[in-house]
Amino acid sequence: MKASALSQLARRTEEPAISWLMKLTLDHPKIVSLAAGFTDNASLPLTETAEVLHDLLQSRAGRPALQYGTTAGDPLLRKLTAARVQSADSHRDARIHDPARTLITGGSQQLLYMTTEALCDPGDIVLIEDPTYFVFLGITQSHGLRTRGVRMEQDGIDLAHLEKILTGLKRSGELKHLKMLYIVSYFQNPTGRTTSFAKKRAALELLKTFERGAGHPIYLLEDAAYRELRFTGNDEPSALATAFPDRVLYAGTYSKPFASGARVGFGILPAEVFQAVVRIKGNHDFGTSNLLQQLLAHALDSGAYEKHLPVLRARYAAKSAKMTNAIREHFPSEVQWAEPAGGLYVWAQAPRRNRTGIKSKIFQAALNCGVLYVPGELCYGDDPARRKPNHGMRLSFGGARDADIPLGIMRLGRVLRTG
Amino acid sequence: MKASALSQLARRTEEPAISWLMKLTLDHPKIVSLAAGFTDNASLPLTETAEVLHDLLQSRAGRPALQYGTTAGDPLLRKLTAARVQSADSHRDARIHDPARTLITGGSQQLLYMTTEALCDPGDIVLIEDPTYFVFLGITQSHGLRTRGVRMEQDGIDLAHLEKILTGLKRSGELKHLKMLYIVSYFQNPTGRTTSFAKKRAALELLKTFERGAGHPIYLLEDAAYRELRFTGNDEPSALATAFPDRVLYAGTYSKPFASGARVGFGILPAEVFQAVVRIKGNHDFGTSNLLQQLLAHALDSGAYEKHLPVLRARYAAKSAKMTNAIREHFPSEVQWAEPAGGLYVWAQAPRRNRTGIKSKIFQAALNCGVLYVPGELCYGDDPARRKPNHGMRLSFGGARDADIPLGIMRLGRVLRTG
Repeated sequence: MKASALSQLARRTEEPAISWLMKLTLDHPKIVSLAAGFTDNASLPLTETAEVLHDLLQSRAGRPALQYGTTAGDPLLRKLTAARVQSADSHRDARIHDPARTLITGGSQQLLYMTTEALCDPGDIVLIEDPTYFVFLGITQSHGLRTRGVRMEQDGIDLAHLEKILTGLKRSGELKHLKMLYIVSYFQNPTGRTTSFAKKRAALELLKTFERGAGHPIYLLEDAAYRELRFTGNDEPSALATAFPDRVLYAGTYSKPFASGARVGFGILPAEVFQAVVRIKGNHDFGTSNLLQQLLAHALDSGAYEKHLPVLRARYAAKSAKMTNAIREHFPSEVQWAEPAGGLYVWAQAPRRNRTGIKSKIFQAALNCGVLYVPGELCYGDDPARRKPNHGMRLSFGGARDADIPLGIMRLGRVLRTG
Repeated sequence: MKASALSQLARRTEEPAISWLMKLTLDHPKIVSLAAGFTDNASLPLTETAEVLHDLLQSRAGRPALQYGTTAGDPLLRKLTAARVQSADSHRDARIHDPARTLITGGSQQLLYMTTEALCDPGDIVLIEDPTYFVFLGITQSHGLRTRGVRMEQDGIDLAHLEKILTGLKRSGELKHLKMLYIVSYFQNPTGRTTSFAKKRAALELLKTFERGAGHPIYLLEDAAYRELRFTGNDEPSALATAFPDRVLYAGTYSKPFASGARVGFGILPAEVFQAVVRIKGNHDFGTSNLLQQLLAHALDSGAYEKHLPVLRARYAAKSAKMTNAIREHFPSEVQWAEPAGGLYVWAQAPRRNRTGIKSKIFQAALNCGVLYVPGELCYGDDPARRKPNHGMRLSFGGARDADIPLGIMRLGRVLRTG
């Protein structure tokens, strides 16, 4: 029996790049990995988690925490979550965030998966940022979706380019396949850039004008996974879910700002999509672990979560500075990069002629010198309108050890100077 | 914009019956629910969980528990899981269970979802037990699959009926769409029946003889979710994964035997399916919460898990006895039912003329008398070869309060006597 019984979805689902990068790390035990998207180990809230869990399991909430819950999530956590996003949003036309449209998930990744399932059939089109979060590309690929990359500027996607793509889809009669625009709105993975509120709103208004041609709503999936990881400045743009509750799918997470081992994320969704996603989640797992949900609800409620944030932010500020100082010292000046104000990554771009992809001389030389990065090419979706740019590098300071950051950058600098 | 952007999958995904039953419970606050599949509240391991978590977060494993892990799961938990299933299996031709084919998931439900995704395209056929676990029917329905129900005997599916269905599919040219047979092998949900090893093996061998006609492997998905919930007797049949590692997808869980709020399940899968499911899980959530995995690993390793099992089993034995004693007293003799030896349910069948479905007089009268059960019709998949039987009732003693069990059965008995 040589033939396979695998589904179309399984056949389309490739080995994720990150697994392959992790294997490289295991094969080269002394390598400095600036590739992994792990969070900082030193600041993980061990004491805080132990205290919250101790209090929780002795409280009246202890028993429910060890029991099944409801698919949409713990009512207290849904309420606290809606209130938390609302308090972070400052623009004047804010409507009250609605716990009834708030869904708790196993990390925000699960929400990205389920919203894609809820909206997209094979052959449908999703607009993405160029570059974008590569695990989202894994989702689109496995579901047989087509992607179109929208160029990025410093404050988010290039609106003129977005309009050009939309017009092109209208002309070619493909608009009916367009379901959503996906953006990572705060300290984007991989570029570290934050999309301004004005730009998010303009993108949404632009999408709206094409809905007639599409024959259905075109949603904006706002992935705010890094929102709470700001470490400099305070010019926080609001999210869109409040202002435009009928078109924005807002994805957030508690994993990265608190403990990535306690996978709790959430979505605030338009009513129709909310209902579809809750039903789908009923089949996935009929609800995220109540123990994790109660842990987060009590960490939020007791103030432990809020108290931990400055600790975490100080750590990432220090690690980011370590990385950018080392880049200043070791990278050739022709490599372009920007100081991040939050998140976990520095995005560096070599001159176009210097390829950085997995088959490139630079990537191989870096491996031989003992440093690993995420090749930029992995962060671009397939798009017939352009070749994938192949000269970027995602450099993570989040999970790397302090001493490894300058060491890794020094090694990479040596490669970039000689390559 | 009236049209919807929802996918085919979302349009097929119906409101799960259990949500609707839960709403009924909320609308009737004084109702006794024998419908919910919750686990016993009184025996939830509060102290054990607190102790394990306390020790865990102070140990060297504390930090990794709060960090991301790998998609397939924590290596220690995978090892302990493979060893645990192996030690439960007693048949002589056992091969060593392989941690490399063991995957940790967010409850066994997630494994059922992902194996279905990995194997089935819309229009494919899955064989199920008549009756079966209704949330699995939610999965098949949302994926646009066709189901064929195999009649059940006391020790599992009717092999002659299985052969008849397979022969029919071969004749109609539909065998190529058949991907798997799904059985709940221990204390089945809803019937409480356990499939003998001989029968599982015979079913598998029968499937094998039809593979040539199918043109691909036909898998057996063995859902062993209730395996550890035996409370009388000890004639434990082995699982199939050991003996037939290339055709059996084994799904297990730690949620029900330990804490249903800590959702950790697992699968032991043939190599090809394992690889596909791990890739799919990479897109779902790139790994189940490490904190939950470490909690279970340490509960297993320290013996806390094992020590808790007899406590749980004694509780379920007592609750089951409460229910069956009340049934003996209050149900008319024409209602058929069997004493369960494990699991969470008693399956009762009224005479065929007495319908029990959601629109039936009996269900409505029960609701008015303050008792809720899962109508048997919900546990049958669509099958062109038969009408859905509509005279069964799934009665859960697992989550109900002790005093509510005889009260609910008394009320239901009154309805059945007068209905």
